[in-house]
Amino acid sequence: MINRETQLCMSLAGRPGNFGTRFHNYLYEKLGLNFIYKAFTTQDIAAAVKGVRALGIRGCAVSMPFKESCMPFLDAIDPSAKVIDSVNTIVNDNGRLTGFNTDYIAVKSLITHHQLNTAARVMIRGSGGMGKAVIAAFRDAGFTDVIIAARNRESGPALAKQYGFQWQPQPEGIACDILVNVTPVGMTGGKESHELAFSEAMVSAASVVFDVVALPPDTPLIRLAQRLDKQTISGAEVIALQAVEQFAMYTSVRPNAQLIAEAARFAREG
Amino acid sequence: MINRETQLCMSLAGRPGNFGTRFHNYLYEKLGLNFIYKAFTTQDIAAAVKGVRALGIRGCAVSMPFKESCMPFLDAIDPSAKVIDSVNTIVNDNGRLTGFNTDYIAVKSLITHHQLNTAARVMIRGSGGMGKAVIAAFRDAGFTDVIIAARNRESGPALAKQYGFQWQPQPEGIACDILVNVTPVGMTGGKESHELAFSEAMVSAASVVFDVVALPPDTPLIRLAQRLDKQTISGAEVIALQAVEQFAMYTSVRPNAQLIAEAARFAREG
Repeated sequence: MINRETQLCMSLAGRPGNFGTRFHNYLYEKLGLNFIYKAFTTQDIAAAVKGVRALGIRGCAVSMPFKESCMPFLDAIDPSAKVIDSVNTIVNDNGRLTGFNTDYIAVKSLITHHQLNTAARVMIRGSGGMGKAVIAAFRDAGFTDVIIAARNRESGPALAKQYGFQWQPQPEGIACDILVNVTPVGMTGGKESHELAFSEAMVSAASVVFDVVALPPDTPLIRLAQRLDKQTISGAEVIALQAVEQFAMYTSVRPNAQLIAEAARFAREG
Repeated sequence: MINRETQLCMSLAGRPGNFGTRFHNYLYEKLGLNFIYKAFTTQDIAAAVKGVRALGIRGCAVSMPFKESCMPFLDAIDPSAKVIDSVNTIVNDNGRLTGFNTDYIAVKSLITHHQLNTAARVMIRGSGGMGKAVIAAFRDAGFTDVIIAARNRESGPALAKQYGFQWQPQPEGIACDILVNVTPVGMTGGKESHELAFSEAMVSAASVVFDVVALPPDTPLIRLAQRLDKQTISGAEVIALQAVEQFAMYTSVRPNAQLIAEAARFAREG
């Protein structure tokens, strides 16, 4: 039961989803934490962020289109957000707001966890906001041989230059050990939901396939990679791990792997 | 379970209590409404109220010390708040914030409900914020023969002048039909928790005793009045009714009397 000690965490998104709400509230209940979590949208990001501070809301997840526009209203930017100029998490410590990026933290942590070889050649397809987080995470994990494949002839070359990587418009032509998709190709509901983000030839030549698309967790790309016995990392892992990072920052509690899997499964059903 | 459609209502108070949180959440659950209620405090009333608007928080109860300071940040002031320059309820209609005063509404409604005789002579003890709501409610209910008894030689005479009533410093000396206490005398935890807000002689001469103190519902004054077979109205009725008014404004649902009594009992136990 909610009482005056209950702490609120929240999200700000152009189009709020249910994942975060269900994920966090599930864990609060299982762990007996006196927190609630609720999704919000806003027409006024300045007043919304100042409201987080003024109301003592403990934490706030930030999604599109507020990841950059929230930054001027924060008191500090953590290196995880500074490296990609993008905040997806605000932590409120007694009125002092710090911006983090747990997508970056999660991707970097998955690179380590899955023991990816930093000497491998990597192709990252995509140059949007999440693409930036992935590119920076690979760079900071120690990868040097990275090709950014992006149709966008502005953001693609710009990111390549910024991070010291190669750029090419098409996601093929060079055999790579690690393939990473950070476009909506394969995502439920999209125009290209049944398409492969990388060709079968590219997947055959690779040893690891990493798809940031979380819905479905088994995109056409992931299914193909599994059929070809490749090591896979799915967007479901990214979304759960970045939410766990937020959860730990807000509550100072880090749930165990089984509980995280349960919460993620529960959250995806919503 | 909270989801993205869940609406948030809240309170802003210098020292948040549990009554509103328990009262509203109890009714949401019993009535199957997709709402949650949470108490907040703030150091920055402007940013807090602007945050209510920016986050689409449906309603906000306002307590001391924010009842006047919140007003400049609202889009409209309902007559119930305008009459006493004091807002205890903010309703957010798609970003348009209107300030109400449900204490005033509740007291006026109790005067009608208990069929108090508008020709009766009334003594109201107290000249604070809630005193103002009570004095205005009696004036607007049609009472003309009202004595304000208040030690404060500024607010007492000022309110009497404003509302066209009498003022005297001490709560005795004239027999009155209706006695109303709007001071903390008799309140749990206060210096004067065991004292009577009106003398036994005053109570003996009256026919109705109305005590706005809600904790305990049976103050020494109410207990004495009951022993002397007087008609009584307790602060528990005021606090429950003003909360019901807020509940109805936020949700457009008005619970029945039995459910309100249950919720008020549950809320008082917290």
